[in-house]
Amino acid sequence: MDAALSSIGKNARHAAKSLALASTETKNAALMAMAGEIRRASKDILAANVHDLDAAKSKDLKPSFVDRLTLTPQRIETMAVGLEEIAALPDPVGRVMERWARPNGMEISRIAVPIGVIGIIYESRPNVTADAGALCLKSGNAAILRGGSDSLNSSKAIAACLQQGLKSAGLDPACIQLIESPDRAIVGEMLKGLDGSIDLIVPRGGKSLVARVQQDARVPVFSHLEGICHVYVDRDADLEMAKSIVLNAKMRRTGVCGSAETILVDRPISDRALPLLIRTLTDAGCEVRGDADTMKASNLVKPATEEDWSTEYLDAIVSMRVIDGVDAAIDHIARYGSQHTDAIVTANAATAERFLKTVDSAIVLHNASTQFADGSEFGFGAEIGIATGKLHARGPVGVEQLTTFKYQIRGAGQIRPA
Amino acid sequence: MDAALSSIGKNARHAAKSLALASTETKNAALMAMAGEIRRASKDILAANVHDLDAAKSKDLKPSFVDRLTLTPQRIETMAVGLEEIAALPDPVGRVMERWARPNGMEISRIAVPIGVIGIIYESRPNVTADAGALCLKSGNAAILRGGSDSLNSSKAIAACLQQGLKSAGLDPACIQLIESPDRAIVGEMLKGLDGSIDLIVPRGGKSLVARVQQDARVPVFSHLEGICHVYVDRDADLEMAKSIVLNAKMRRTGVCGSAETILVDRPISDRALPLLIRTLTDAGCEVRGDADTMKASNLVKPATEEDWSTEYLDAIVSMRVIDGVDAAIDHIARYGSQHTDAIVTANAATAERFLKTVDSAIVLHNASTQFADGSEFGFGAEIGIATGKLHARGPVGVEQLTTFKYQIRGAGQIRPA
Repeated sequence: MDAALSSIGKNARHAAKSLALASTETKNAALMAMAGEIRRASKDILAANVHDLDAAKSKDLKPSFVDRLTLTPQRIETMAVGLEEIAALPDPVGRVMERWARPNGMEISRIAVPIGVIGIIYESRPNVTADAGALCLKSGNAAILRGGSDSLNSSKAIAACLQQGLKSAGLDPACIQLIESPDRAIVGEMLKGLDGSIDLIVPRGGKSLVARVQQDARVPVFSHLEGICHVYVDRDADLEMAKSIVLNAKMRRTGVCGSAETILVDRPISDRALPLLIRTLTDAGCEVRGDADTMKASNLVKPATEEDWSTEYLDAIVSMRVIDGVDAAIDHIARYGSQHTDAIVTANAATAERFLKTVDSAIVLHNASTQFADGSEFGFGAEIGIATGKLHARGPVGVEQLTTFKYQIRGAGQIRPA
Repeated sequence: MDAALSSIGKNARHAAKSLALASTETKNAALMAMAGEIRRASKDILAANVHDLDAAKSKDLKPSFVDRLTLTPQRIETMAVGLEEIAALPDPVGRVMERWARPNGMEISRIAVPIGVIGIIYESRPNVTADAGALCLKSGNAAILRGGSDSLNSSKAIAACLQQGLKSAGLDPACIQLIESPDRAIVGEMLKGLDGSIDLIVPRGGKSLVARVQQDARVPVFSHLEGICHVYVDRDADLEMAKSIVLNAKMRRTGVCGSAETILVDRPISDRALPLLIRTLTDAGCEVRGDADTMKASNLVKPATEEDWSTEYLDAIVSMRVIDGVDAAIDHIARYGSQHTDAIVTANAATAERFLKTVDSAIVLHNASTQFADGSEFGFGAEIGIATGKLHARGPVGVEQLTTFKYQIRGAGQIRPA
């Protein structure tokens, strides 16, 4: 590992130690100062972004890629407001999570503490520089940011504002460091933890980035590879509610991980539900791919193949299948799902409880849209991502989920008997 | 991976699904039945153990190794009582960890659920078969056990009792499976997760086993490599309390991970504290290795080298150093410690709080012995180990720490606005 990278790791570890002890006021002052710096430097950030966009144009990149790379005065203002919103969140560090006394009089407390140093690996979305850096700061963690090379000029301009904000609050600028070298081997070094300097990796980007991170990381990762989310419309569903939830779950935004990809319809109501759901979705511009039973209900339906059940379309396409009851729905989700977010629509409380208890996903919903899979909708404030791993963080990862804990024990001279 | 191993993984995953939904009564009935089976099969277990011991004798193994391998009628009864105690613990699965309502009326609950399938890799201690299997069962997890080959006959006899107990409670015997093949490559396959069948590895054994697991595992691990625990005797310490805590922290049991390895003495009280502590420890049969300042206080002290500060003796040896105040103690612990368990002795509340807040270890104590680092002393009941990793489980790992969670959302048709 080269010396520059090694010193980034060491500086982050050193900064993390003092940041863990920083007061809420100091951290919030830094976040507010960062927002001010970003507003003040708006023109510089836009100029840097123009450099990135010019270079991107010569590369024949997808329009969606260029859109994510593009900054506007309004998007810069949104970034600044985002920093202020993170400043306004409660400080997750130092919370007493539990406290109890032992028969010998010792008092044990479980106290939230920062995780340490978090590495963020993201694609060419300059706003992640500010969002991720700020979430780490609020939770008392030092951040090492490695953004996509196509956004490097924009990210550098933003990171300069963050560092200015840290300095003006008296914090170590190494609390948030941006890696500027385009060397791709650096990502590999980060995934190995930079010689013990990184405690956790959070990837932000598409499936290929996340797959690579999950495959190669030797430190813990908070991530989800894909969101193959289901809505199961049970025999006891209110059909109007089902229509409204299915339409929203699929079509509110098709590119988010909480959008539904498969609709499962219970056989006893399929005669009434299928025509209604298919018409509603196709009227909204959604392609419906169905199994044989679904195809019988409407000539608007294209045939679904086995592959469709495990496909995250992230587009205005949905797969639809007729199944026999809640247990068959649970089995389908266990086989094809991604343990992300799944919903049941039913008026039968017992059926709902069976679904909520049995489906092994980070988020399970009864009579509500899968599009609620989002930190802000949970009341967590901003989130750094959604995790489908089972350990530590599951579901939306906000500032609370970026902390760990330690046990503090207060005694009066207790020793342990033999 | 061979077919037998692959089917163990698949059977465990299948068993975990039904076990996650098993009632508290069923799990407890299985645990009680296991205890009964172990008592009933006591003679068979002892006979199997004699086979293991005979084979071990020809191998010139350490006495401590043979002692851990040896079963007696009393140790078998202790194992059975252990199972009954785990049955008596509260069920950690299904706990409502948090519950809140959103402005749109949705109710979000965070519910404890099992992790899934846990692989336990342990040395030749047959009792771990029962303890670890039972802790996994109580927490709703399927267990795949891989014990040391020198204890295979004993472990097989115990595992047969566990499986009989599972069957008599109507549970899938694959909830607890013992790997019987001595092929050492199996451990490597387990560390890679048996093709997605293992969610978590818990190693139980010495430093070389844990180091190998930490190095090679591609799935999460709950473990601690070593416990280099400190007692810092502050200038404001009550010296009688310090004497009592230091003696207990080092000498109550020297072979446990929570035993103290280094005593840090604050300079302003070193003239009075050093002779007292050195005499107390040497009178109890402990070798004291000290820095130059410590050596000046007594000719009983041997010189400590740099290596001593990072050595886990697990023996009646302690290192001792004179340092300048609480911040120097914190620095020493950050440099040489293992983030396990560290204690301060002081009557000064502000100094104590600084130590408790700043030392980044899983367990930090004020005026109490480091030997309290144990699940039973925390009130967790039995523990499967102590974790020094920062994510999910930290400190003692009992049945609660063997669960994860999911979010259940109950709605009335809520959809997400654009």
